[in-house]
Amino acid sequence: MNELVSQIAAIVVAVLAFATAFWLYRWVSSQDSSNKRIAEVGQLIKDGANTFLRKEYTALSVFCGVVALLILLFLPSPIWIGSAKKNIIMTLAYIFGTVFSAIAGKIGIDIATIANIKSAEAATKGIEKSFMSGFRGGAVMGMAVVGSSLLGVALVMWLTGDTTALLGFSFGASSLALFAKAGGGIFTKTADISADLVGKVELGLPEDDPRNPAVIADNVGDNVGDVAGMGADLFDSHVASMAAALVMAAAIGGANVTMVFVYATIGLLASIIGVAGAKMKPDGDPTRALNSSTYVTTAIFAVLTALATWVFDFEWRIYLASVFGLLIGVVIGITTDYYTNDEKKPVRDVAQASTSGPAFTILSGISNGLLSVLPAMVGVGVTALVAYLVCDPLGEGYAMFGISMSAVGMLSIVGMIISNDAYGPIVDNARGLVEMGNLGDEALEITDKLDSAGNTVKAVTKGFAISAAGLTVISLLGAFISEVNAFAIEHNVLRDGVIFKLEGFDVINPLVFFGLMVGAAIPAVFSALLMLGVDKNAQRMVAEIHRQWREIKGLKEGKEGVVPEYDKCIEIATTGALRELIPAGLMAIIATLVVGFIGGVEAIGGFLTGNIVSGLLFALFMSNAGGTWDNTKKYIESGNHGGKGSEAHKAAVVGDTVGDPFKDTAGPSINTQITVVSLVSSLMAGIFLTTNLVHIFMK
Amino acid sequence: MNELVSQIAAIVVAVLAFATAFWLYRWVSSQDSSNKRIAEVGQLIKDGANTFLRKEYTALSVFCGVVALLILLFLPSPIWIGSAKKNIIMTLAYIFGTVFSAIAGKIGIDIATIANIKSAEAATKGIEKSFMSGFRGGAVMGMAVVGSSLLGVALVMWLTGDTTALLGFSFGASSLALFAKAGGGIFTKTADISADLVGKVELGLPEDDPRNPAVIADNVGDNVGDVAGMGADLFDSHVASMAAALVMAAAIGGANVTMVFVYATIGLLASIIGVAGAKMKPDGDPTRALNSSTYVTTAIFAVLTALATWVFDFEWRIYLASVFGLLIGVVIGITTDYYTNDEKKPVRDVAQASTSGPAFTILSGISNGLLSVLPAMVGVGVTALVAYLVCDPLGEGYAMFGISMSAVGMLSIVGMIISNDAYGPIVDNARGLVEMGNLGDEALEITDKLDSAGNTVKAVTKGFAISAAGLTVISLLGAFISEVNAFAIEHNVLRDGVIFKLEGFDVINPLVFFGLMVGAAIPAVFSALLMLGVDKNAQRMVAEIHRQWREIKGLKEGKEGVVPEYDKCIEIATTGALRELIPAGLMAIIATLVVGFIGGVEAIGGFLTGNIVSGLLFALFMSNAGGTWDNTKKYIESGNHGGKGSEAHKAAVVGDTVGDPFKDTAGPSINTQITVVSLVSSLMAGIFLTTNLVHIFMK
Repeated sequence: MNELVSQIAAIVVAVLAFATAFWLYRWVSSQDSSNKRIAEVGQLIKDGANTFLRKEYTALSVFCGVVALLILLFLPSPIWIGSAKKNIIMTLAYIFGTVFSAIAGKIGIDIATIANIKSAEAATKGIEKSFMSGFRGGAVMGMAVVGSSLLGVALVMWLTGDTTALLGFSFGASSLALFAKAGGGIFTKTADISADLVGKVELGLPEDDPRNPAVIADNVGDNVGDVAGMGADLFDSHVASMAAALVMAAAIGGANVTMVFVYATIGLLASIIGVAGAKMKPDGDPTRALNSSTYVTTAIFAVLTALATWVFDFEWRIYLASVFGLLIGVVIGITTDYYTNDEKKPVRDVAQASTSGPAFTILSGISNGLLSVLPAMVGVGVTALVAYLVCDPLGEGYAMFGISMSAVGMLSIVGMIISNDAYGPIVDNARGLVEMGNLGDEALEITDKLDSAGNTVKAVTKGFAISAAGLTVISLLGAFISEVNAFAIEHNVLRDGVIFKLEGFDVINPLVFFGLMVGAAIPAVFSALLMLGVDKNAQRMVAEIHRQWREIKGLKEGKEGVVPEYDKCIEIATTGALRELIPAGLMAIIATLVVGFIGGVEAIGGFLTGNIVSGLLFALFMSNAGGTWDNTKKYIESGNHGGKGSEAHKAAVVGDTVGDPFKDTAGPSINTQITVVSLVSSLMAGIFLTTNLVHIFMK
Repeated sequence: MNELVSQIAAIVVAVLAFATAFWLYRWVSSQDSSNKRIAEVGQLIKDGANTFLRKEYTALSVFCGVVALLILLFLPSPIWIGSAKKNIIMTLAYIFGTVFSAIAGKIGIDIATIANIKSAEAATKGIEKSFMSGFRGGAVMGMAVVGSSLLGVALVMWLTGDTTALLGFSFGASSLALFAKAGGGIFTKTADISADLVGKVELGLPEDDPRNPAVIADNVGDNVGDVAGMGADLFDSHVASMAAALVMAAAIGGANVTMVFVYATIGLLASIIGVAGAKMKPDGDPTRALNSSTYVTTAIFAVLTALATWVFDFEWRIYLASVFGLLIGVVIGITTDYYTNDEKKPVRDVAQASTSGPAFTILSGISNGLLSVLPAMVGVGVTALVAYLVCDPLGEGYAMFGISMSAVGMLSIVGMIISNDAYGPIVDNARGLVEMGNLGDEALEITDKLDSAGNTVKAVTKGFAISAAGLTVISLLGAFISEVNAFAIEHNVLRDGVIFKLEGFDVINPLVFFGLMVGAAIPAVFSALLMLGVDKNAQRMVAEIHRQWREIKGLKEGKEGVVPEYDKCIEIATTGALRELIPAGLMAIIATLVVGFIGGVEAIGGFLTGNIVSGLLFALFMSNAGGTWDNTKKYIESGNHGGKGSEAHKAAVVGDTVGDPFKDTAGPSINTQITVVSLVSSLMAGIFLTTNLVHIFMK
């Protein structure tokens, strides 16, 4: 099989994914919906989500326009030095990356805001139909994201044959992910916290009470943060993992580029089969249904890639690295589950500690979150080590390529992962609709069960996504070296009389060390800025809720026909999210530029390393601690330690409120921050190499 | 000046430091003390502290005995391969290190438990005398610690002339610091939290009420955690910084060994002058008095080292690196102050957020803690970079040596730093004694003021200590390389046919990367284990307090002559602290061994790097967030946002309770964990080089 054929195969399977998405979309849309009240509320959520998307995409188009212009002028090399054609290709690839990701996000939001209604109504008829509406809705997103990702990468490679252009495409995906994930994360937690704080705590309203002005914003938040944001994030990781692998594959030559495409294509194919075949028995367990689809997909991938490796005579060692990566991904997912599952010791311990008051909820939650980083960190480290040991004998460049292929392996089943992940917010919304539409206790019980399965699966997929991002960025480090060296040869960059060659990043080199320290601080600052952003934004929304409660007559009493001004709250959440996101994003990018212009490529290597290490640590810590608190609260609410209203419950609510921005804003956004910074570095590689202070000083 | 003379000078100045300590001790002891009630309580605290020390030193002697035996058998190389004499010297140096540190700790505890009484009584006569008793008490500790440290290092070098033996001495200091700092940290927070939780919250007793069975344990805790623990920690850092610099200086040769001793000696001299000259005007500001002594000491160091460099013709470039390190240390101290001072924005913001409830106290405190890591991380990175740029032109090995000298510079004024730091717990105790002895409101107000200055200064010195530890461990990385290469030459270790030479640690090397990931996870797990240890131990003590309150007749009513069984609580805190500390310490050491035996010296390089980066991040984050919460509570208690008893105050108390183990147990213990792990690695260098799985596998 040659490269072109593999790219065409990728395009064909990507189209198949779109067809599957279309079929699932039709299936979900064709489900019953008759309840008028639910349709009304569903429409409000849909409109709110689209308001956010519109504003976000408008802000993005300005941001991306500026970035595109800068790329046109400077990348891969200043337009007055290098070739104008390359710069134009890079710019187009970048725009292409943003547009593909945006389209996938839009499709995801559309189906999610349909599927929630269907799932809610189906809940009156039993758990099976309700589950299938939620799952297939999520699967549309999964198929759309991975289909676009594979299609985009294959098209860029086919049209340009240039792996550097792929980095541009990947950077486009990252730019969008930054806005979608961090912006969406601020939106969703602003709404969630404000709705809870004023609604539940102050006014004593039940969850999802329609009199609460923030209630629609809260439901919109699930969609923009957890559906669109998560989709953009995984789109970003998937593209980056392929881009990094392809950059190194192209540098080695041989059948390796083909192999990357074949493996990624098989991954998507396995996800299509897994998604299409997913079923739940009547009265089955939704968590088991979700997990077993994941295991089936994993198995299909392992078998089909083995077959492909045999038929096309690829290197078995790389196969091993890739499958090992996937297995470790699954193992990491399972350990994450241990720390956040309410049937396991950590959550039980935090619940027990909550009986001594909120300080102990926080302390034990933080402690468990800190402990939970170990398996994933060790897992990523071991994967890299094994990939190296297995692939190094193949020759120069293969060790790094093996690592990148283990990342490709870990991310191969991402179509399935996204389906499972998007399922969560859909059924969460469905629960809200059942409440608001008064569909009865039985339906509420069913959606509660579906929702709880969503939370459990979410913990698994999050651990998975963070670790995969970690491995991916290591391969981006490899890609960065390739870029630097290619630039040095092309532009004849000399150091000490010979052409510069970057061998690696020695931490004993103080330039690297300097970068390491600064890079490690960035995720801490980034996540702090996002959390403070949620805090500020929530204060604005709380003020607005108070105003409506005071000024709108009849609202308090629940008078027939009086509705709050839901759109005002959505407006605040949207505008605030974008406003608070900018400083955090800019800080990360500016720090990269400062370090690069001071210390050159060596400092950037350290910077990226520090950023990956600290980013992984904080992302895992925050996501898992947040998940632990969330489930602790639910565990207590289900009647343990005094149940709702007890002192333990009050303490658990404090934990959950702290955990919300941890797990849904800061934690998962760090992924994106790492990728953005890595890609900025790779794209600026040549400029950092030739233009930096230390270099000038040392002359 | 030759090496021997510089060592003798060091010994002379060390003796001078002891003389100063003795003079200060006499001065403090000669202050008035007439109040019987205070003398009684003071005696209880003293006995309690000695109980802890006795148990700690007993446990330590078992631990150190085992370690000494292992050293005798295996280090620097297995006794049946290398020279028995070297192993004996190493073992003695190790024991020497533990004993010196233990003696300094004992002296510190003795004076602290005298000075607290004197400071309390003096408070009835005005702030000046009360301040001086506290400060000079702390200064005894400062002089004893740095005197022992310099004396020990000089003696080891003089007697053995072997820098590897110095690493043994340093490891002895680290072993003790691990027990003293982490064990003391668990002790102090166990007592503090339990006393507050049952006493203040449950029973409504005022702070330091003598009916509270945990009240003496709480006061003992200040001494064992903050005086002895902190002293052992800084003893450890000071020794390690000198050891690392000397290992590299010896490798380079020339006047460099002499220079290290001269600089360290001048640092101690400057501290002696600073301490002896420290004064406070009647009605002066205690914070200013403490800070101005620090600035004076810094200036004296800068001037005297310049003079020495000129007279003895040392390298000016190294002078610059050293002084730059010290300046950055001061700058880091000042920025830390910004994040924890109640007159600055962060504390005010957290106080404001507290009006919305405890979740917001936690979220904003964590966010500020995360932001606060930036200046220190950048500061350490910049110091390393500048030291490199300035010293690299001097020749091979000078870049790393320059970095180690900037650490020596940063730690040069540690005598002054310890004096300021030990002042805090002494006046905190004095405040308790004033309360328990009923010395009147005026005296209470004075000790409150002194206590608040102690808290502010503590924040500064903590930032200083953590950053200095960071720089020191980088130079330990350099020392590790020197050790590996010396071993390879001595034992003719071949790789690919030539003698192995470790050049550095390239993060692109998957062995290094594997170590990096595991190493980065360790501080997270270590601090989690300590915090969980506090939690478990506090539960035991809470049960004991309940028992006494229930069983001892007349205690509740405050009947004349009825006293609680204070020693039971001290017993629980002591035993529990040592029990909870073991798993955390063993985990860190075992992880080092596992990584070393799997991946060899390259993996260990990554391991140490990851450990330093993540350790610095968590240590700074935890210490500063804890400091912010502490001062937020005090700020609200002084009448803001509703003052004591308000909702904001309740929220702030939750923050403070979370912050306690953050800032006094986990955060500052991470320092010690890093040093222990670094020294284990350096000592095991040869064994890891020749015996590891990957090495065997790759053959």
